[in-house]
Amino acid sequence: MSASNISINGQRLLADLYRLREFGTFKTGVHRPTYSEVDIASRHWIAEQMRSAGLEATIDGIGNVIGRAAGPGPKILLGSHSETQNEAGWLDGALGVMYGLEVARTLAEQGRPGAIDVASWADEEGHYMSFPGSRSFIGELTETEIDASKNRYHGKPLRQALAEGGLAGLPRLQVEPGRYRGYIEAHIEQGDDLEAHDLKIGVVTSIVAIWQYRIRIEGVQNHAGTTRMAIRKDAGAAMVRLATAIEATFPKVCAERSVWTFGRMTLEPGAPSIIPGAAEAYFQFRDAEPAVLDRMHTTLEGLIAEANAAGPCQVSLHIVGRSTPVKSDPALMAALDRGAEKHAPGLWQRMPSGAGHDAQYLAKVMPSAMLFVPSIGGISHHWTEDTADADIVLGCQVLAAACADLLDQG
Amino acid sequence: MSASNISINGQRLLADLYRLREFGTFKTGVHRPTYSEVDIASRHWIAEQMRSAGLEATIDGIGNVIGRAAGPGPKILLGSHSETQNEAGWLDGALGVMYGLEVARTLAEQGRPGAIDVASWADEEGHYMSFPGSRSFIGELTETEIDASKNRYHGKPLRQALAEGGLAGLPRLQVEPGRYRGYIEAHIEQGDDLEAHDLKIGVVTSIVAIWQYRIRIEGVQNHAGTTRMAIRKDAGAAMVRLATAIEATFPKVCAERSVWTFGRMTLEPGAPSIIPGAAEAYFQFRDAEPAVLDRMHTTLEGLIAEANAAGPCQVSLHIVGRSTPVKSDPALMAALDRGAEKHAPGLWQRMPSGAGHDAQYLAKVMPSAMLFVPSIGGISHHWTEDTADADIVLGCQVLAAACADLLDQG
Repeated sequence: MSASNISINGQRLLADLYRLREFGTFKTGVHRPTYSEVDIASRHWIAEQMRSAGLEATIDGIGNVIGRAAGPGPKILLGSHSETQNEAGWLDGALGVMYGLEVARTLAEQGRPGAIDVASWADEEGHYMSFPGSRSFIGELTETEIDASKNRYHGKPLRQALAEGGLAGLPRLQVEPGRYRGYIEAHIEQGDDLEAHDLKIGVVTSIVAIWQYRIRIEGVQNHAGTTRMAIRKDAGAAMVRLATAIEATFPKVCAERSVWTFGRMTLEPGAPSIIPGAAEAYFQFRDAEPAVLDRMHTTLEGLIAEANAAGPCQVSLHIVGRSTPVKSDPALMAALDRGAEKHAPGLWQRMPSGAGHDAQYLAKVMPSAMLFVPSIGGISHHWTEDTADADIVLGCQVLAAACADLLDQG
Repeated sequence: MSASNISINGQRLLADLYRLREFGTFKTGVHRPTYSEVDIASRHWIAEQMRSAGLEATIDGIGNVIGRAAGPGPKILLGSHSETQNEAGWLDGALGVMYGLEVARTLAEQGRPGAIDVASWADEEGHYMSFPGSRSFIGELTETEIDASKNRYHGKPLRQALAEGGLAGLPRLQVEPGRYRGYIEAHIEQGDDLEAHDLKIGVVTSIVAIWQYRIRIEGVQNHAGTTRMAIRKDAGAAMVRLATAIEATFPKVCAERSVWTFGRMTLEPGAPSIIPGAAEAYFQFRDAEPAVLDRMHTTLEGLIAEANAAGPCQVSLHIVGRSTPVKSDPALMAALDRGAEKHAPGLWQRMPSGAGHDAQYLAKVMPSAMLFVPSIGGISHHWTEDTADADIVLGCQVLAAACADLLDQG
């Protein structure tokens, strides 16, 4: 059977996505934080679906769910993640995992058994750390890192979460050298670019780098009524001044697609009648060009140096993570192009990914690429995140065709 | 015995303050939030000390601890509060309650029995609401308000806290008309004015008004990597812009002693890779002049209207509380002046209070005044808050002399 005749079962795919949404339903979205009770339950359900699809399924010591095809022959690895941000959407991650499952079933049913492995990488959303699942699979995650990790929101140690999830002591699976032709991750776009151009498929050319920081400001906590303005060392006011300086300066040094965000800002102790003695923020920026990233970093350091010279508070910058931009593999992109042109002629484009994905780590050990489907209104990381059913089905069809195409190439 | 010969027992006073500090010791300060286990225990201990001093002590249905002197004759009410802000100082509130106790004992021992009532007003620090204790005593606190109140930090309903503290169903004591010559509240200054001028005693002329607000900004939550800067509706960025506008504009409309503070600022949901969909802040300002307060309020409304006109987020202003400035009673101030000049000649001044105090509510039903002692470094609402032992003792001596003086006037 040629690649062009492969046909996925759209109703089966949608039914699986609907079922997965029931693990942690929040309004029309999902609240399924990594290693929570519903998250662990969903991993067991995913493993069961893999087994039903003829794969040998394992939940490993970091929570990765990996379904391996039996038998010899070239394999393609498909996957994404299945936990969600807090009170977020139903497709971010889940889509790519269920696509993998549906493509594995379809190819097995339609003449290409044993060709697709499927993975759900643990904690892509970073409740505990950056990409522990895919980093564990490529051999980059140390036990020491696991020992030190705590939940970003409530502080639970990762070791405790793994133990509560029944994962403590399980081996962590690593990539088998030479097994794979490549890795393809399907995902919702999470932006409005496809929708704005009436397109249905994005073939991802690169994943932008994310540079993440924790900014801490130390002032002096004092009474908000009795302390004159002139002698205050208000850490909150200092944070506002720094954020204002960044907002004024970054547009001058960034590139066209650069983005930057204060995702969190807290004043301590956070009471109405107390001048904040400390303030803390999560700040990040993203771009696909190393030179632009360097320029933004240098600018940030310069603004903090200026703030410290001006006083009266002390600002410190802590690097949380700095990834490098990752290019997609040309042969995988070409196969995705052909699949898109076959099933969505004229309705696709090549585009960068503004979000980080596990694919950037898989790319270190095998050819990797990504496929995007439209996000309605460009919304994600929110419970209203959605994609039209027809677009969901179309994206999976393109992925299946691309996989068959690659396998046909031997 | 004339007023000038009254002499308090400084060692006894300090010993009581040290003992009270043991309820919830935090570093060199105290963590004793209203209705917490240690707070309830401390109220029972205070009631015991009142009884040892010959007072009839009651813990009432809102948690006020009130010690009443037996017998006829004019009475003076002394007091303050005994709970603390979170992880805060050992003297804020405690000082005035222990002064009351020491003055009651001293006057009873030295020829003026039955003249001093002592009160510890519940929750002056506002863990649940604004001044419930003193407002209850003057008849301004309704059962409906109690029903609706929750803890500002962890959301526990006030009714539940009262029940857990064994206070549910107890009567709430109200002021007995005609009983008092007046109310005097001693307190640490909480600013650096006395210290900066090498003074030991402040006779408070007025309590500034506090106008408190909750500012809420609604934007659109989205992905921090895939959402272009141009189309963002970032509620956090909007909050920073508003705070910057306030910082630029308030100095032009305020008076010399005006202060304003963002005590809390939170971005929702508060994750590194999510553009904040909402932001919320506690904002307040203070001044002793109604015209200045009005001007600051109008300015705030104007800046918010400008922000809403400019977009892209929607800002709403919610009034949490607006008190009125309160003048101290001239006769009480005069007695405090004489006491200060007797025991700290040349080392005292009249001054306004930049902080709110229970005295502003007691002033609605009887002549009221306040006395300040120096705060080391002007620090309060922090565990390093402190006052020199000698200054603590001197302040109580001045208060005792002023009370004796007032009683001598009949």
